[in-house]
Amino acid sequence: MSRQYNFSAGPAALPEDVLRQAQAEMLEWSGAHASVMEISHRGKEFIALAEAAECDLRELLDVPSGYKVLFLQGGATQHFAQIPLNFARREQSVDYVLTGDWSEKAAKEAKPLAKVRIAASSAATNYDRIPPRVEWDLDRDAAYLHITPNETIRGVEFHEIPDAGGVPLIGDVSSTILSRPLDVSRYAMLYAGAQKNIGPSGLVVAIVRDDLLERCPKDIPKILSYAEHAAQGSMLNTPNTWGWYLAGLVFKWVKAQGGVAAMAERNRAKAELLYGYIDASGWYRNPVEKSARSWMNVPFTLPREELDAPFLKESEQAGLLALKGHRAVGGMRASIYNAMPLEGVQALVDFMKDFARRNG
Amino acid sequence: MSRQYNFSAGPAALPEDVLRQAQAEMLEWSGAHASVMEISHRGKEFIALAEAAECDLRELLDVPSGYKVLFLQGGATQHFAQIPLNFARREQSVDYVLTGDWSEKAAKEAKPLAKVRIAASSAATNYDRIPPRVEWDLDRDAAYLHITPNETIRGVEFHEIPDAGGVPLIGDVSSTILSRPLDVSRYAMLYAGAQKNIGPSGLVVAIVRDDLLERCPKDIPKILSYAEHAAQGSMLNTPNTWGWYLAGLVFKWVKAQGGVAAMAERNRAKAELLYGYIDASGWYRNPVEKSARSWMNVPFTLPREELDAPFLKESEQAGLLALKGHRAVGGMRASIYNAMPLEGVQALVDFMKDFARRNG
Repeated sequence: MSRQYNFSAGPAALPEDVLRQAQAEMLEWSGAHASVMEISHRGKEFIALAEAAECDLRELLDVPSGYKVLFLQGGATQHFAQIPLNFARREQSVDYVLTGDWSEKAAKEAKPLAKVRIAASSAATNYDRIPPRVEWDLDRDAAYLHITPNETIRGVEFHEIPDAGGVPLIGDVSSTILSRPLDVSRYAMLYAGAQKNIGPSGLVVAIVRDDLLERCPKDIPKILSYAEHAAQGSMLNTPNTWGWYLAGLVFKWVKAQGGVAAMAERNRAKAELLYGYIDASGWYRNPVEKSARSWMNVPFTLPREELDAPFLKESEQAGLLALKGHRAVGGMRASIYNAMPLEGVQALVDFMKDFARRNG
Repeated sequence: MSRQYNFSAGPAALPEDVLRQAQAEMLEWSGAHASVMEISHRGKEFIALAEAAECDLRELLDVPSGYKVLFLQGGATQHFAQIPLNFARREQSVDYVLTGDWSEKAAKEAKPLAKVRIAASSAATNYDRIPPRVEWDLDRDAAYLHITPNETIRGVEFHEIPDAGGVPLIGDVSSTILSRPLDVSRYAMLYAGAQKNIGPSGLVVAIVRDDLLERCPKDIPKILSYAEHAAQGSMLNTPNTWGWYLAGLVFKWVKAQGGVAAMAERNRAKAELLYGYIDASGWYRNPVEKSARSWMNVPFTLPREELDAPFLKESEQAGLLALKGHRAVGGMRASIYNAMPLEGVQALVDFMKDFARRNG
């Protein structure tokens, strides 16, 4: 056994306790005499699992009544398309705030389906900040306003939910959900690909306000309609049952850690440790404005590009996995989601110090 | 440990060898120092896994060159919508042959997107047969002809691929893929939800001929375009990596069993044993025409409805799981996919004999 500290941006590390339970139950889950992957999603055993997972997530995020919680497929990217398909209206624009590659992609996928407006963008400064709210050019009559509360590639995070001026706010929280408390009531819809803080890839969790669901057109295929999925309890067709199961185990794990408030404390400490060292080093560099630095994804560069290869090789030898930065940015990136313990970040900082000393 | 014979229609039983390997590798897969769910789908380790799975499937089904093999999400139901979105043409109809509930659903989901024609249907006889090919009313100019080679609910299967008269033939092989040899060259597209003969739910395998891919419109969101998925090697966004991994293990298992020819022999023997007993019993009854009986799903009824509840209770006590028939049909259904051994069917027949003797 040599599991190592895994800084993968996603699919990302899962809590080891969760993996151990899944391992123990692989051949026989609960009293089913079969694995959880081998039973009907409509049977009472799986329905109980599904309901418990939803219930735990509602509790963790304190989801107000009047919101549906959905367990869907397709990755967040599919929902980049499904959101305008369901919620855009012919006469209205849909507004997007661009703070990195993922919000860009979300806007691009919406273009064939809606009148996309860019309400704000920090592209001009290489996505190193959140554009100040006062400079946003919002359309008061927009069908919705879309933001990406955390950008995994650039490592840029909204630390406050922006005022959407009365327009329904939709947030892609794939890489920040469950990392800290979240005021769901400020959003009309939240959605998250599971493969960072929730579970394995292939599952999407969506939290949608009832009034938004009323907009879903009746003349689209049912499988693309959020209202239909909501009406069928996310069982319009066979869901990703393994993903739903693992998500349920992760929710229980987060609760056992003390919930999202405790995760926030831990995540703040991890981020402060890593950014603190980067800034103090004078050698490594993170390009993001301090007020917008992500707690989850920390990109950093070395003083000279030719040091990247040895850094990656030696960090891997030191048991620190998947530190290579995204090809769009270069350098390194440490993704430090919920499942990464403080000790992992400390081990990374220790390695970085040593590497800088030897190569400085 | 008390895994039992599992007759679930889907998500269905997986080969125990596959589950044991997944269990052993749950915390550390290959040399990754992490589970297969915790690594980047774009890293060389996962790419190698993905390519091996595709390669094994191509070998198993003898997929000709000129076809792309895709690993997608959304369940077959999502593809009920994606198929017309990608392949219908404004002026052309799309033809559907209805042989049960799943082909009905496929046609329904296509309606908002294309001019759907029903070329043939056995609804009038309660989907107890395949409508004879000579009676089909095909549109020679249809954009495609859609069939469902096996219907899980009614237990109706095409034992020969019908002549599509030059129209591109599309088949939903969710519940029959890998159960027997399949002449891929007769189809323009095949697709299958994984949760019967391939792996866990949340994964769809599609095999699409290149000329069909050229039809995909450029003005739809990329995530809904088969051509875009093909161009990106099914990694347009994060795929269901766990599903892909398990599918790869199942493909290796099928190869180790002797491939699809060996599976066909075994499946034929299982089906003959069960139908043979049902017919000989004079007590149980299967309503499907003999020439169209499914090798994978065997619905049967008891002489009196009030015997259903005791049959289900006692069969479960005897270690025979999930025999309840679909609510649309009633009675019982034994799904006997690849992972069900002959011994499981024998155990079912033994139980059925005993139950009939005691209640006859």
